Amino acid sequence: MTSSGTRGGIDLGGTKIQAAVVGADHKVLGEEREATPTEGGPPDVAAAMVKAMRAAAEQAGVETSELEGVGVGAPGAIDAAAGTVSDAVNLPKWADTSFGLGEALAKELGTEIRIGNDVQVATDAEFHLGAGQPYDSMLGVFWGTGVGGGIVLNGRDWVGRGAAGEIGHIVVKIDGAKCPCGRRGCMEAYAGRRPMEEEARRRHEDGEHTELFKIMKKKGHDRLKSGVWEDAYNDGDKLAKKLLDRAVKALGAGVASAVNVLDVEAVIIGGGLGTRFGEPFKDRIAKQMSKHLFADDRPPAILVAELGDLGGAIGATLLFDEG
Amino acid sequence: MTSSGTRGGIDLGGTKIQAAVVGADHKVLGEEREATPTEGGPPDVAAAMVKAMRAAAEQAGVETSELEGVGVGAPGAIDAAAGTVSDAVNLPKWADTSFGLGEALAKELGTEIRIGNDVQVATDAEFHLGAGQPYDSMLGVFWGTGVGGGIVLNGRDWVGRGAAGEIGHIVVKIDGAKCPCGRRGCMEAYAGRRPMEEEARRRHEDGEHTELFKIMKKKGHDRLKSGVWEDAYNDGDKLAKKLLDRAVKALGAGVASAVNVLDVEAVIIGGGLGTRFGEPFKDRIAKQMSKHLFADDRPPAILVAELGDLGGAIGATLLFDEG
Repeated sequence: MTSSGTRGGIDLGGTKIQAAVVGADHKVLGEEREATPTEGGPPDVAAAMVKAMRAAAEQAGVETSELEGVGVGAPGAIDAAAGTVSDAVNLPKWADTSFGLGEALAKELGTEIRIGNDVQVATDAEFHLGAGQPYDSMLGVFWGTGVGGGIVLNGRDWVGRGAAGEIGHIVVKIDGAKCPCGRRGCMEAYAGRRPMEEEARRRHEDGEHTELFKIMKKKGHDRLKSGVWEDAYNDGDKLAKKLLDRAVKALGAGVASAVNVLDVEAVIIGGGLGTRFGEPFKDRIAKQMSKHLFADDRPPAILVAELGDLGGAIGATLLFDEG
Repeated sequence: MTSSGTRGGIDLGGTKIQAAVVGADHKVLGEEREATPTEGGPPDVAAAMVKAMRAAAEQAGVETSELEGVGVGAPGAIDAAAGTVSDAVNLPKWADTSFGLGEALAKELGTEIRIGNDVQVATDAEFHLGAGQPYDSMLGVFWGTGVGGGIVLNGRDWVGRGAAGEIGHIVVKIDGAKCPCGRRGCMEAYAGRRPMEEEARRRHEDGEHTELFKIMKKKGHDRLKSGVWEDAYNDGDKLAKKLLDRAVKALGAGVASAVNVLDVEAVIIGGGLGTRFGEPFKDRIAKQMSKHLFADDRPPAILVAELGDLGGAIGATLLFDEG
């Protein structure tokens, strides 16, 4: 890929908005994080994105209007040509509406806006600039609130009819646990942070001992964020261990299923939990996968994402590169 | 694709060898079927293939040496350049050996031999000449002794590192039933004809009533072939119905998982059982899939393979077409 001028990238997540400015060599020149508004609606989210981008540009010593453009990795359904985002269920009042995010940001930032799928831009970042660089085909596994997947085949994104890579909804247990998507037995029903929290709450209310919710409060959170799971796990909390083991087992089966279909060279594990738990959990996921890989004499390379929390924002800047 | 002269194609299966000769327009000019030898070794299988091909050529009114070439769809691991087939576990004394099938056939048939993967050539046949023609991307599901899959993306085969499309080993139930591959919970463990027969035998021995084995004997078989399952099902045999329902449920979950990964435009269902049960079962598989499809507002087209039993042999002739 050829690189170009100074660009911005924004990763729009359900919890946080991460903005970055990169130079011609993809080096990060400025970065800023904002909490995603939980109230209001799409215009308020756009305003928080503008604020984060302006702060990242200031750090980089440029005006946003001087940027070649700003790329956005967004959840939900994206119409790249129209610059609209709809069905973003984790964003306030954005589930049932289509919002002209491109136009709103362009007006405030004074530069071109390009919008891509959040998981796909993070996958592209790892493929072109991170752990995926040595390979021609890879599967990105983003383990966080949910479980998302991005696919690169022969060096190019494979998005199908727009919804390829929905690995979180691979069925790992027929008639199994309820998934946030409403279906049963999806990998995400066991490995997504949201259903893991719900399961922890249920078991805690049923009398199982756990420090998870105490740690949560001590950290000033109202949800079991990745750091809460990490602390509880490291403290030897039995319920946290049980639910993380269950998640790893589901990830092993589901990701192995995807590899049995795609036979890619590499699997790169990122996302909030994937990045947080890193190498030791990657090895445990690989071990669970090995039980289910058909071509088990030559498993894919299994690696932790290298770009960490910034992967999404950096990947969004790639929307201005020539692939 | 451009078409060429008169060619032969052989589908090498564990039960039968199907040979066909096609003309420039892919029209079948001759066909012959031979039982696959169950004793001897690779040279005996090659001899049976030669016999079938000669008979098909005679029907077509040509010598095999006049054919532009003969394509072969083979199971196991194929080295197309070397013309060798190894690890063909369902063929006699072929599990642990590599046999120069291309050379053996070329010597007897007097024409060029090209060898491809059995499932992939059957998928290509449906894509170029059968139910897949209107689409750019498809998943072929071959439901028979096992469950195989072939993938076409953007009009081209996707084979990964050689083992893509192993959809039979998508995990549909963690810690589930034992699969002939030795792993647990694979789709094939529930939907493959071989494990279905083993399960029927176990339940029958445990006292469950079924006519399956009586029908088998009456038909002069020693295995529960597709036709036996069909007769028992149509007679209202409860165990046959139970095991077929279980198979359809597993197929629904596993194929939906593959579609959630690939987001292809169409799913084409073929294979011994798939072809035998046709439309009514296709609709039942589609119904089970709908429970698990992520993009459920626009499911892929789900179709029965059009080329039936001849698909593999016709697909093998395509090894001489320019794609």
